[in-house]
Amino acid sequence: MEDKQAMTNVVTLTSDFGNKDFYVAEMKAAILSICPNAVIIDITHEITKYNVRMGSFTLATATPYFPEGAVHVAVIDPGVGTHRRSIAVETRKNFFVGPDNGLLILAAEKQQIVRIHEITNLRYMLPKISKTFHGRDIFAPIAAHIMNGIRIESLGPEISEVVKPDFAQPMQKGEVILGEVLHVDSFGNIITNIGKELISKIGLKSLAKIELPSCDLKLKFSKAYGEALPSEPLALIGSHGFFEISVNQGNAARRYEINSGDKIIVSAF
Amino acid sequence: MEDKQAMTNVVTLTSDFGNKDFYVAEMKAAILSICPNAVIIDITHEITKYNVRMGSFTLATATPYFPEGAVHVAVIDPGVGTHRRSIAVETRKNFFVGPDNGLLILAAEKQQIVRIHEITNLRYMLPKISKTFHGRDIFAPIAAHIMNGIRIESLGPEISEVVKPDFAQPMQKGEVILGEVLHVDSFGNIITNIGKELISKIGLKSLAKIELPSCDLKLKFSKAYGEALPSEPLALIGSHGFFEISVNQGNAARRYEINSGDKIIVSAF
Amino acid sequence: MEDKQAMTNVVTLTSDFGNKDFYVAEMKAAILSICPNAVIIDITHEITKYNVRMGSFTLATATPYFPEGAVHVAVIDPGVGTHRRSIAVETRKNFFVGPDNGLLILAAEKQQIVRIHEITNLRYMLPKISKTFHGRDIFAPIAAHIMNGIRIESLGPEISEVVKPDFAQPMQKGEVILGEVLHVDSFGNIITNIGKELISKIGLKSLAKIELPSCDLKLKFSKAYGEALPSEPLALIGSHGFFEISVNQGNAARRYEINSGDKIIVSAF
Repeated sequence: MEDKQAMTNVVTLTSDFGNKDFYVAEMKAAILSICPNAVIIDITHEITKYNVRMGSFTLATATPYFPEGAVHVAVIDPGVGTHRRSIAVETRKNFFVGPDNGLLILAAEKQQIVRIHEITNLRYMLPKISKTFHGRDIFAPIAAHIMNGIRIESLGPEISEVVKPDFAQPMQKGEVILGEVLHVDSFGNIITNIGKELISKIGLKSLAKIELPSCDLKLKFSKAYGEALPSEPLALIGSHGFFEISVNQGNAARRYEINSGDKIIVSAF
Repeated sequence: MEDKQAMTNVVTLTSDFGNKDFYVAEMKAAILSICPNAVIIDITHEITKYNVRMGSFTLATATPYFPEGAVHVAVIDPGVGTHRRSIAVETRKNFFVGPDNGLLILAAEKQQIVRIHEITNLRYMLPKISKTFHGRDIFAPIAAHIMNGIRIESLGPEISEVVKPDFAQPMQKGEVILGEVLHVDSFGNIITNIGKELISKIGLKSLAKIELPSCDLKLKFSKAYGEALPSEPLALIGSHGFFEISVNQGNAARRYEINSGDKIIVSAF
Repeated sequence: MEDKQAMTNVVTLTSDFGNKDFYVAEMKAAILSICPNAVIIDITHEITKYNVRMGSFTLATATPYFPEGAVHVAVIDPGVGTHRRSIAVETRKNFFVGPDNGLLILAAEKQQIVRIHEITNLRYMLPKISKTFHGRDIFAPIAAHIMNGIRIESLGPEISEVVKPDFAQPMQKGEVILGEVLHVDSFGNIITNIGKELISKIGLKSLAKIELPSCDLKLKFSKAYGEALPSEPLALIGSHGFFEISVNQGNAARRYEINSGDKIIVSAF
């Protein structure tokens, strides 16, 4: 590429705050008051309320595409104001700021964690800290200061043990893979935790046999949604490398009554 | 803080336009056509349609966190195209642009109003002004010109009387406070108009007696949501200094069938 | 205007991806990784899934307000990964990037098309191209490179035939106009394809006779919503120059059970 890549000013936000209230805007205000040239990108604020697992998956999915130096703030935080710690994570590529409840770690580990510090230094927080909205009072200002060049070593003591997120690993048993639904997107695509490498190990090529809680399916294993007829179901490797079940121009999750966390069994037909 | 705060370029938008249509994008296009380096922040566009009161509260809640010099545009405007005036308000900290229907004044008064001008100068509006979308044709370009340095004295005549928003004040009667629900957020938190000073005046410390239209409650008065068990209700002072009723990881407004505007009576137990 | 207009950095995004998933954020990440100073504006991501027609109308409605040099990316793309082509369109004012399925052309034609190129040059795409998410892997990086100054002649071969969007033209038959509902907005305003010139040709001044699939109406032809009483229906020329049916502070589409695509017959009373 002939374009010289400037250092990024990108700060991303991920939360369960929704787009109706003023919470997200207050976080942005806090960031821009400290780092006026931050470029703030919303990953999403429509994570299901209190669903740390969905936030964790979303963050881990989206963050690899952001440039070096980006700072990611995530807040799904039912434990705000209690003894749960606030943490900042430096990886080889980006920074992550949020609660120590597993939300940040899946994403951070994909970029190789360099260090994790607890956030305790009041100097980099808002002057008045509520017990119910650390997104605005702690995480947003910390992210802005990191973007301004403050080292995460200044934020508080280094720590080694953090809360890990709770994701099942897919398992191969002979010619069969036992997996789990990671996410249902707004198109109704059923995204599983089964990666494309595992799929090729069982020799799945043209027809997939799939067991869902609601029914058994025999689906064409395709490359693109449009290879099926409108309303026809299909299986494919999605844009993040996971095995997905879709309905072309339809909603697979609704048709098969599937939710995140459901078990799935896949084999070649 | 060691960071030098640059002059802000922040223009905020608040409306009932929703996120589905093209109205918000057209306002942003109008702003960026006049002030290309504006940093546009959405406070929210999901205000309940035509609900000036909810817009007024939202604006007053979020704007204190924005930096000096920010320009706030708000459009909840059932009277657009009729005789209602367009106004620009300068406060000691920020600027506010929108219809003269009470929407801006609660927020502006929190920052001490310096002057209010009616917007009549066509020179700072779009060339063609519709009768139905002043957000794009008048308020957005005016905000962009203010961000570019145009003084609000240039926009039209100074005025002294404006429409005031309609909010009930909480009342203390002996050991009891009579208040009102200001807002129900997307978590179902019930935010009242009762400030923390009033709560401390009635000596409320550990247990709150609360009368709602639907039921009477005796709730633990807590500091953080997580001090209650999941699904357990609690009362607390929220992140904006108001008395709130919440359910930890649940939805208090749905459980108690509460809407904005409902009456509430609070006392110490 | 005394303000010198700088060259714009605006890249807009229009899609049916919704605001819940990570797809939009990944497109923004791809853009900012290549063009760090891009100013990304969402037109909307709440186009009804797979509805190219609604996307086409939305894009054509919003884009005229954006400054010269803006790059518009649109992705409603049921044919992603199949033989449908990717295209970049240069007009006299802006650039458009997206699938060759009719989505871009209505908007582009309003600005006079200069040239259209198929996108085939891998050099300006992400290194790994999925078969299901060209928004992130092709359209976003292409838009960023165009903003960086790459000429669209470098993207692939020039083409002359593209897929045209499918919109009915209104027809005048004597004193009557036969038209169609183009869009129902989130206020329930019914926006038709009948322009104000056609309305003046049939001499419609104070009272409109309207035939809808569900009922016949006789409506005041007004200038502003507020000229009707609250809950009263009215007809007017909306802010984009089209004949609209509205209910002041109410929802006309719900009241008259109208959807996009419905037929409408208008005459003067």
